[in-house]
Amino acid sequence: MTDAPLAPLPDILLRPLVENALREDLGRAGDITTNAIIPADAVWAAVLNTRQDGVVCGLDLARLAFDCIDSDIVFTALKKDGDRIAAGDSLARVEGRARSLLSAERVALNFLCRLSGIASETHKLVEAARPHKARICDTRKTTPGLRAVEKYAVKAGGGHNHRFGLDDAVLIKDNHIAVAGGVAPAIQRARAAIGHLVKVEIEVDTLAQLDAVLALLPACPVDAVLLDNMTPDQLRQAVGKIAGRITAEASGRVTVATVPAIAATGVDRIAVGWITHSAPILDIGMDQK
Amino acid sequence: MTDAPLAPLPDILLRPLVENALREDLGRAGDITTNAIIPADAVWAAVLNTRQDGVVCGLDLARLAFDCIDSDIVFTALKKDGDRIAAGDSLARVEGRARSLLSAERVALNFLCRLSGIASETHKLVEAARPHKARICDTRKTTPGLRAVEKYAVKAGGGHNHRFGLDDAVLIKDNHIAVAGGVAPAIQRARAAIGHLVKVEIEVDTLAQLDAVLALLPACPVDAVLLDNMTPDQLRQAVGKIAGRITAEASGRVTVATVPAIAATGVDRIAVGWITHSAPILDIGMDQK
Amino acid sequence: MTDAPLAPLPDILLRPLVENALREDLGRAGDITTNAIIPADAVWAAVLNTRQDGVVCGLDLARLAFDCIDSDIVFTALKKDGDRIAAGDSLARVEGRARSLLSAERVALNFLCRLSGIASETHKLVEAARPHKARICDTRKTTPGLRAVEKYAVKAGGGHNHRFGLDDAVLIKDNHIAVAGGVAPAIQRARAAIGHLVKVEIEVDTLAQLDAVLALLPACPVDAVLLDNMTPDQLRQAVGKIAGRITAEASGRVTVATVPAIAATGVDRIAVGWITHSAPILDIGMDQK
Amino acid sequence: MTDAPLAPLPDILLRPLVENALREDLGRAGDITTNAIIPADAVWAAVLNTRQDGVVCGLDLARLAFDCIDSDIVFTALKKDGDRIAAGDSLARVEGRARSLLSAERVALNFLCRLSGIASETHKLVEAARPHKARICDTRKTTPGLRAVEKYAVKAGGGHNHRFGLDDAVLIKDNHIAVAGGVAPAIQRARAAIGHLVKVEIEVDTLAQLDAVLALLPACPVDAVLLDNMTPDQLRQAVGKIAGRITAEASGRVTVATVPAIAATGVDRIAVGWITHSAPILDIGMDQK
Amino acid sequence: MTDAPLAPLPDILLRPLVENALREDLGRAGDITTNAIIPADAVWAAVLNTRQDGVVCGLDLARLAFDCIDSDIVFTALKKDGDRIAAGDSLARVEGRARSLLSAERVALNFLCRLSGIASETHKLVEAARPHKARICDTRKTTPGLRAVEKYAVKAGGGHNHRFGLDDAVLIKDNHIAVAGGVAPAIQRARAAIGHLVKVEIEVDTLAQLDAVLALLPACPVDAVLLDNMTPDQLRQAVGKIAGRITAEASGRVTVATVPAIAATGVDRIAVGWITHSAPILDIGMDQK
Amino acid sequence: MTDAPLAPLPDILLRPLVENALREDLGRAGDITTNAIIPADAVWAAVLNTRQDGVVCGLDLARLAFDCIDSDIVFTALKKDGDRIAAGDSLARVEGRARSLLSAERVALNFLCRLSGIASETHKLVEAARPHKARICDTRKTTPGLRAVEKYAVKAGGGHNHRFGLDDAVLIKDNHIAVAGGVAPAIQRARAAIGHLVKVEIEVDTLAQLDAVLALLPACPVDAVLLDNMTPDQLRQAVGKIAGRITAEASGRVTVATVPAIAATGVDRIAVGWITHSAPILDIGMDQK
Repeated sequence: MTDAPLAPLPDILLRPLVENALREDLGRAGDITTNAIIPADAVWAAVLNTRQDGVVCGLDLARLAFDCIDSDIVFTALKKDGDRIAAGDSLARVEGRARSLLSAERVALNFLCRLSGIASETHKLVEAARPHKARICDTRKTTPGLRAVEKYAVKAGGGHNHRFGLDDAVLIKDNHIAVAGGVAPAIQRARAAIGHLVKVEIEVDTLAQLDAVLALLPACPVDAVLLDNMTPDQLRQAVGKIAGRITAEASGRVTVATVPAIAATGVDRIAVGWITHSAPILDIGMDQK
Repeated sequence: MTDAPLAPLPDILLRPLVENALREDLGRAGDITTNAIIPADAVWAAVLNTRQDGVVCGLDLARLAFDCIDSDIVFTALKKDGDRIAAGDSLARVEGRARSLLSAERVALNFLCRLSGIASETHKLVEAARPHKARICDTRKTTPGLRAVEKYAVKAGGGHNHRFGLDDAVLIKDNHIAVAGGVAPAIQRARAAIGHLVKVEIEVDTLAQLDAVLALLPACPVDAVLLDNMTPDQLRQAVGKIAGRITAEASGRVTVATVPAIAATGVDRIAVGWITHSAPILDIGMDQK
Repeated sequence: MTDAPLAPLPDILLRPLVENALREDLGRAGDITTNAIIPADAVWAAVLNTRQDGVVCGLDLARLAFDCIDSDIVFTALKKDGDRIAAGDSLARVEGRARSLLSAERVALNFLCRLSGIASETHKLVEAARPHKARICDTRKTTPGLRAVEKYAVKAGGGHNHRFGLDDAVLIKDNHIAVAGGVAPAIQRARAAIGHLVKVEIEVDTLAQLDAVLALLPACPVDAVLLDNMTPDQLRQAVGKIAGRITAEASGRVTVATVPAIAATGVDRIAVGWITHSAPILDIGMDQK
Repeated sequence: MTDAPLAPLPDILLRPLVENALREDLGRAGDITTNAIIPADAVWAAVLNTRQDGVVCGLDLARLAFDCIDSDIVFTALKKDGDRIAAGDSLARVEGRARSLLSAERVALNFLCRLSGIASETHKLVEAARPHKARICDTRKTTPGLRAVEKYAVKAGGGHNHRFGLDDAVLIKDNHIAVAGGVAPAIQRARAAIGHLVKVEIEVDTLAQLDAVLALLPACPVDAVLLDNMTPDQLRQAVGKIAGRITAEASGRVTVATVPAIAATGVDRIAVGWITHSAPILDIGMDQK
Repeated sequence: MTDAPLAPLPDILLRPLVENALREDLGRAGDITTNAIIPADAVWAAVLNTRQDGVVCGLDLARLAFDCIDSDIVFTALKKDGDRIAAGDSLARVEGRARSLLSAERVALNFLCRLSGIASETHKLVEAARPHKARICDTRKTTPGLRAVEKYAVKAGGGHNHRFGLDDAVLIKDNHIAVAGGVAPAIQRARAAIGHLVKVEIEVDTLAQLDAVLALLPACPVDAVLLDNMTPDQLRQAVGKIAGRITAEASGRVTVATVPAIAATGVDRIAVGWITHSAPILDIGMDQK
Repeated sequence: MTDAPLAPLPDILLRPLVENALREDLGRAGDITTNAIIPADAVWAAVLNTRQDGVVCGLDLARLAFDCIDSDIVFTALKKDGDRIAAGDSLARVEGRARSLLSAERVALNFLCRLSGIASETHKLVEAARPHKARICDTRKTTPGLRAVEKYAVKAGGGHNHRFGLDDAVLIKDNHIAVAGGVAPAIQRARAAIGHLVKVEIEVDTLAQLDAVLALLPACPVDAVLLDNMTPDQLRQAVGKIAGRITAEASGRVTVATVPAIAATGVDRIAVGWITHSAPILDIGMDQK
């Protein structure tokens, strides 16, 4: 089964983020440098060029940054989100009033560099795990306010999405188990509370905990188990115990270096927090055309 | 002259960020895992512990994350923003309804880890440059929506702030000079447009450009010059030419490894984009007390 | 497996709804009747009484309506959401400034009557279906802006929640199948696109369509099938074909009169749009104590 | 004097309602079903058809739902708000990207069905009261957040509007009278407080109370009296006492069955809460063209 | 009939204005002067003193400005809105953290000075017209965003409110009459369109126009007539023609000097735009206690 | 050095102000007068004419008021912000649906009259000071919510801007000095806290205080000194002491009558609060074309 093509987020979800970022940058007085120096009627053209190899993401946000400043600007995307790009590639062309282009530049790039950074780091992990069935997926360790677009960037990089928030799936963690008094009551209470279109995942730290979860199958099922901070050897044993009955997900200590061994254990998913919370940006700039 | 103590941002500026982040995480249905598993009347206590050495920042945002979910939670800060912390240190204690603590945890940590990451990376640069007078400062390459708190984190790490947006200072860059037709008309137009409480900085890439700027002194002054992507040797020459008349700021290729040599050139400021756009988080977690 | 206790939505999600409703009612000049007639220092006490039997829901919203107008008001809930109530029962007591009580009354009641209406109608269906395992659940046919609280009211009435929006589960409907070119490609594309914590349901109108869906099991699974507008006899056949492998959900022509026969077919879920889009309110008023 | 043609609410008042509803439905990840299954470049056409007889209302909101998702969609209204429609009638045609049409469908219909339901129920009352001069009017018992559009729907159904909020007219109710210490001081205080463009209505439950109000005329006038929960016989006596000097309005126990007798008493207005708080929707769907 | 006591606007309507003003002043970095110079733990006390005679208004907004910055500040009102004050009077006392007091000062004063200016100018007109029955009232010529509080200030000064917006009363002006084709059709259309709790006023520029309006009485009534830019002599004639049947309102060229003559004509209301659009502030400052 | 041409604020900063003002005026029910009287299909044309001499400002806000109500309206500016205008001049022409023009009129004019009033008063001061180098500048005594546009109006009138808020420059006032314990520690703390692109100004009331400030130069510099409430003679002495080393700014008791003498003292800036807080509007109306 091949992965689905990337579907963009609708502008109605993106526009508030862009407007907020522009107002944050323009402050009260607007772009005083550009307004002082650049004549109002000067026109200009520029290209957004990457200085690094990677995967591009965020072109719609960049387009909206220019559009929100000046709807007369012509933004022509030369790549599309998810494309692999090489240092020197032009990602988009912008033409219009010089003032507008210069005033929107930083916000457009701040979005584009950040999301391309996430997509690019994700892609490295995806490539490193490729011979195996394991899919790279994200977490809720995202930048406050930017979760939807950062998870979109993970998909642009070839990754998959974990839950988007506290409300769209159940993830039972160690503290839940502790307060509930064990794996069984935690799972039972979750199943009793949720709708039939909500999945349940449980985090386990040991193979013994995994056994307790599996012992409840199929009467009181979970859909997935998160094997946290296990060694490849432990993961391999866990995958054997699970035997394909539920999704096996690994997390903890995942890097480009370690991911091949983790993927080789046969897990279905590998969750990585740092692709959203600590990915460096991809360096993209705006150059005169 | 010693640096000033860190002043917190007022809650009226922080609260909208926290509420937005909480609503993003709670979605429509709230924390379905916790609500299903944890009894409504269970009380709990936890501590926020760092797993890494660094500098803490974001305690007010963490406090507000718990407060916005449940104003009965008692949040006790054990450190203050800007404190150096070592792996294992407890940063704050939280006590109250177990549900509330678990529902607010991720948002509190997402802010705290990110800002502490920025403060910690900034601090490394500050330490590396310490014997010299050069101050580390930030840029406008910040996360959309989080500029004020990220610049606050730079100060927590011992750094200084560059301008906060397009409106509070003039920074003349290469494209401005190109469209204006040279350094002199660009500076003249800027000076004519701005109020008497606005400073002007100009970016130069070569010593020849610097000479053109300095030739305008003192008749048509700038307050600072940004020496972009120069070698330490070029920087040293530039500092000599400037001779203390205006602020000399370096930028480009600044790392913990290169910053001592840059600082040693005698520049006043060293601007670094990656401390806000690419700093990895500091790993902080919430543990049962 | 018994159902879970009802968990309240956090105030941070409810308060914007209440503030919006109060501002809508207060307009620009506020409560000109009350301000003209009632002395500023008059205190008063009242009770919220139901004039009809049913199930109460919305007490937190009512509490917030009074609290947002005047945080000195003492609101004492005498029932809790989900409780069965009889005509004449007092649901809450409010005490404080007479002006505040009268100004907040209508907004408090508008929420309380509407949500109690939804809970009460839901409860009638739940009772009518009780001997059987089928659970009553809601749809996305909710009042714009009030989905979260209306779905909460369904739970208060003993019902269960279907997906909360377009983003938290896949529901493949007739138009999707038509454009995709059949059941199989539709399901395959959905599975390829979604995360491992997202469920997939497909709507079928005929037993032949159901056969096409089931033929894909288990290789390309769906989690549930929505049997739309089928007769009890067709539903019974469908349940037999499904044989417990996936969730069987019925929808269409569901009333208190028809629901026993539908539930008796053995379906797992019965989806009902009118409990949110057409439930009459429960008549609740505020009376001097 | 014939009634005025229906004037639409300006888009600037409607658009926030539609955007809020779309964001509520799209959540964080958008329409994952449609994006997975429908190709990005597929175009489609559909019609909005009613399955029931009634009066249509909400076409502007439906138009905006499609427009906010995708401004390239062509929405062609085939009816106008206030038109009588019969089961099977097409109300509007929509053409454009298939994804956009399917993603906006539910929000468009949720508005259209609800407002058409209100207009249709109002219209039944208007028809039942038609031989008489009495006008059907609404109350403040509206859905929180939707008051303006629900009151617009009442007008589309041939009804009239009562006050829109607490601030645009004075309505003295039983609790006001009780705290004020009688009808006379209540009216006097109201008249002293209000501007010359604000009307005053008072609610009375008995003919004795009515006498007390009328005794104040014309020195301390009210503009209207709300005769609450009176029998047709009492209403007829009240109308006789009022003798055309002020507006006589009836409320309480108004149904399509009872309204002819109430209207026959000669009252000027009949206020009905359930047309906004308990009207069932009119069933309208979107079908492939 | 004496005027009603002034009723405050509820905090839920005032707080958004204050928060907006504070965020406008604090910008992104907050009060950098105070934070640099004043120690975090310094406490301070100050009084808000008027430097001019007048009428105070806006104490709730001032209180909220301090409260929104720091809820620990103790704000003690020494006067109440509508009180006459003399130069040197203390209006309120504030005590708490010195930083908070200094950061909130300007916003508190900006509201207080502006509203007191409006109240004071209104009061001069009220006094000048006092021997007569005419009431001074406002217009819709208010500061964008501040209409509700500015109209409240008019009441604090002893004035009365005209309509609050385009939606709460009908005011037929010259352009309406021109497009409608005369006074009669304009009034007829208005009466047909509006609810029974909405009043109708019409603007006339000549006595001939007034005759046309009065000729429609009582069959097609208006509630008030706005006599625009008439001389006292014309106004006296107009009042004679109106003969108490409807409210007679004068507008145009109203100053403290001209208002006695206008009031002496017997008009009921005198509308004045400049009390909201051009009133100078009342000079109030914050002094160390 | 000539002053810079006026640069407009971007629509993204203006549109929220206009939408807020329109919603404030339209309320819940919209323009009930116009909708009742003017046919939906009537078209109309009008011009915005000034009744007074002055300087126009606010044309973009006026344009947006019409555009936000009806984007089909054609708005043609006949003047540009900052132009000198004479009574009778037409400033803009508007054409389109009569309803839309009449509904937007008041909001458009409220902005235009207010900002033109500020620009016109500023211009009078600028003209009165013209033979001298002193520039007129504004303060933070602006209307809450309108600071950016009011400061723009000051520039349109030929004035200059002081700081925009508490965050973009340091202004040390008497209370700061008092709590800090003197001029020297106050300046030292400020310099230690701020970024290199932030200027520092200090307010002095006496020549002795000025001496204390100047004694710190150049080691601990300020960029400007605010000479508050000094006589022309004192100002002249102060200018002599300052000797061009820092900006000399006067404030207090500035009127068109007094400004020539103040400017003649040689100060660089003259700050005036009343041009924003107490300027009367410029009378501009909309007339049928």
